[in-house]
Amino acid sequence: MVVAGRGIIEAMDPEELRREGVRFIEWLADFHERVESLPVRSQNRPGDVRAQLPQSAPQDPESYAEILSDVERIIEPGLTHWQSPNFFAYFPANISAASVFGELMSAGFGVQGMLWTTSPSCTELETHMLDWMQDALGLPVHFNSKGEGGGVIQDSASSATLCAMLAARERATEGESNIRGLFGGAPLVAYGTEHAHSSLEKAARICGVGSSQLHLIEVDDQLAMRPEELDRRIREDIEAGLRPFFVNAVVGTTSTNAIDPLPGVAQVCRAHGVWLHVDAAMSGIAALCPEFRKIHDGVEGADSYTVNAHKWMLTNFDCNLFWVRSRAALTGALGLLPEYLNNRASASGEVIDYRDWQIPLGRRFRALKLWFVLRRFGLQGLQALVRGHVALAMEFAGWVTAHPDFELSFAVPLNLVCFRHLDSDDFNQRLLERVNDSGKLYLTHTKIDGVMLLRMSIGGANTNRAHVERAWSVLVATASELRAADEGA
Amino acid sequence: MVVAGRGIIEAMDPEELRREGVRFIEWLADFHERVESLPVRSQNRPGDVRAQLPQSAPQDPESYAEILSDVERIIEPGLTHWQSPNFFAYFPANISAASVFGELMSAGFGVQGMLWTTSPSCTELETHMLDWMQDALGLPVHFNSKGEGGGVIQDSASSATLCAMLAARERATEGESNIRGLFGGAPLVAYGTEHAHSSLEKAARICGVGSSQLHLIEVDDQLAMRPEELDRRIREDIEAGLRPFFVNAVVGTTSTNAIDPLPGVAQVCRAHGVWLHVDAAMSGIAALCPEFRKIHDGVEGADSYTVNAHKWMLTNFDCNLFWVRSRAALTGALGLLPEYLNNRASASGEVIDYRDWQIPLGRRFRALKLWFVLRRFGLQGLQALVRGHVALAMEFAGWVTAHPDFELSFAVPLNLVCFRHLDSDDFNQRLLERVNDSGKLYLTHTKIDGVMLLRMSIGGANTNRAHVERAWSVLVATASELRAADEGA
Repeated sequence: MVVAGRGIIEAMDPEELRREGVRFIEWLADFHERVESLPVRSQNRPGDVRAQLPQSAPQDPESYAEILSDVERIIEPGLTHWQSPNFFAYFPANISAASVFGELMSAGFGVQGMLWTTSPSCTELETHMLDWMQDALGLPVHFNSKGEGGGVIQDSASSATLCAMLAARERATEGESNIRGLFGGAPLVAYGTEHAHSSLEKAARICGVGSSQLHLIEVDDQLAMRPEELDRRIREDIEAGLRPFFVNAVVGTTSTNAIDPLPGVAQVCRAHGVWLHVDAAMSGIAALCPEFRKIHDGVEGADSYTVNAHKWMLTNFDCNLFWVRSRAALTGALGLLPEYLNNRASASGEVIDYRDWQIPLGRRFRALKLWFVLRRFGLQGLQALVRGHVALAMEFAGWVTAHPDFELSFAVPLNLVCFRHLDSDDFNQRLLERVNDSGKLYLTHTKIDGVMLLRMSIGGANTNRAHVERAWSVLVATASELRAADEGA
Repeated sequence: MVVAGRGIIEAMDPEELRREGVRFIEWLADFHERVESLPVRSQNRPGDVRAQLPQSAPQDPESYAEILSDVERIIEPGLTHWQSPNFFAYFPANISAASVFGELMSAGFGVQGMLWTTSPSCTELETHMLDWMQDALGLPVHFNSKGEGGGVIQDSASSATLCAMLAARERATEGESNIRGLFGGAPLVAYGTEHAHSSLEKAARICGVGSSQLHLIEVDDQLAMRPEELDRRIREDIEAGLRPFFVNAVVGTTSTNAIDPLPGVAQVCRAHGVWLHVDAAMSGIAALCPEFRKIHDGVEGADSYTVNAHKWMLTNFDCNLFWVRSRAALTGALGLLPEYLNNRASASGEVIDYRDWQIPLGRRFRALKLWFVLRRFGLQGLQALVRGHVALAMEFAGWVTAHPDFELSFAVPLNLVCFRHLDSDDFNQRLLERVNDSGKLYLTHTKIDGVMLLRMSIGGANTNRAHVERAWSVLVATASELRAADEGA
């Protein structure tokens, strides 16, 4: 198969791309026809995949027929099907044909977007898409690139939060921490609640602030931050000689979709000159719909904001959207210009070089898929999807409430339902495992104040009412079976 | 176009994937037929792309015909063609049809690889591919997952270096820095040379160590680190009460492909108990060929090592390969387990959860493309490609040496040729700009001791002798024109 051709070997053959590409497209289309019938969570045992693979890389070329046959035989059974309409675990990661085509084109172009000059389209389309999304989500105009702010695509909300924290660290230390490090200064302190995503603590560790300088603020009965407690703690810390520098507020916590009160939190941050970062990783997308835009009340006070197009907006991972009020604060923290990257366009100051807005240097052309999705569906299509998922979640919550053996654990603001069987934690754990082992659906859990809750996250691209209804039937029937077995024992 | 269908809207329609997918595949194949004829560096001016885009996202769906027509009309002219056989700038980022298919399948599956249980194939294929590559590159067996080490795919060598530094920081502070932060302790010190990649300094800043605690070690006349100077500086720093914790050695610097002497550097690191990280971002791939494997002499002393499959191995960005001698050191630095991610498989200890090996939480299925490339070409195909590029670089270096107006600046160990016209820096700058403005080829520069050098990086998937010969002809002819114009002026 390796022959002398255009290059040293036939490394990138357009004819091969044309001929064999159709084979992969056909296979994927077939896969999506049948994904609903596959077990949702992989039934594999640890090591099942590796046991079927040769011990070392082949010396000689193999055919695409062999490769694709192994994908079907070895890889597919080891997948947990995030694209199944019966997937209700963790968070949605819904995708669309439009997004897959965007990824295909990005891969086919094979360009690097580290600097404007290394592919102007890659940078400019990204800036433009972030401006479109700032507008579509009703975010403050100070995040638009026309002013002093702007947006960028990151791989994940974790990285966005880390970048925000680094920008805040630089601002708080007036540029000292990048140069002199953190040794010797008074401890910097970050704030959040215990319900913030684990990436907040990870960021505090990575940037040298440390877990013990992440101060957790008390929450109310809906697990939302109490602004007056934030204020009290910041004053106390200043009194103690510490340096408060960063507050992380959440719009839709991972566990239960709790929403921190942004107006109150922002007021406290402003009073103390502390950077406010808003993490709306999944839930922020709901703001595409005017009727849900209230989740963003108070976001005018944010210095940075992040949401994932790759969760609930039909766009493939990775496509995190991250905005800052001040581009200069971010590039001041992350910019470095070695001579080998110096170029006329960068020197002119007329362009954005996104390498200075992120941890890595290299970057893919990720804006393409976002552009494709926005055009293929239009904002109205995406709004219809979000509305539909929220309506299904409300309906599911109603079934839970009406059932004598189950209870709703928290109010349902959007598409996540937290609930439990009235029996013990152990019973709920067994219920979860038996349902997931069946392959019929997949859902996950959390613990709040030590109590086990089941999480039903509704957001599949092809999930409709029938799937949600069936999920509820399976849960109810499985609970009855377990109860009967427990009573028989 | 948005109709009621399987889901709430027709969000992921297999028929659409099948029908429209062929359209994109055909377009990409045509693009690769003609990419050689396009200007290599985009001729766009800042703002050209954005000026052609609507001010806000569409409310209604648009057709794929419209989208693809805009890709051709707006996006393509704004691309710098990294896949052109006339691209000799920065570093290679060569791709192949096999890799594009791997990306396509990864996008089509749309799974999350953050935990083993969220898709066992994603984790196990990755571990297996890293074991294959450890063997294929002749790397020490302590990096193989069978022992206490193992490998992982990161987005970039920048992130790999940051992760290595974080693991080293935790080891040096005995787990204190993640919890207590860096405040109050004696300064930690990292080491490298001024020719190390800028990501080394960026990592030192991010993790709170600071640029001024990155001590640059003197180099020899080939710009390689002097181990005796490293030893001297570490002793001096210990004497001064500082804590040396991390040494970054480079196999193939970005500017000139200099190679730090690993045996001597490793000996110093071992003597002082300092973490040794080896950054072989581009050049490490040469070790696929036994005759170039000497670049890895001494790598047995490394605690971590990184190389990019996405530079010189026909694999799409992002596909950085990163190995550590001790998995526990890495996961000790980056691991965190919130309840909502807890699951049976993780609790069993039998599986790898790659979220604990990286900065972000989420991760794509990137091992697929690497598997496809290794199987489609076999190691022999990849070796032939590397050998061919190195031979072309040697030949180009010969032409430079033989020409009375040009000089070779450094020995050429692999596929990068650093050279200059004997005229002034200003002349070389104008030569570079005129050549790049012509669109016929694209190359970049660096400065060493203030002197401007041109960099000819040979590694395109479809680059053959004719392209390299033409590049040289254009350089020589353009230099003559400039000289004639200067003399006429």
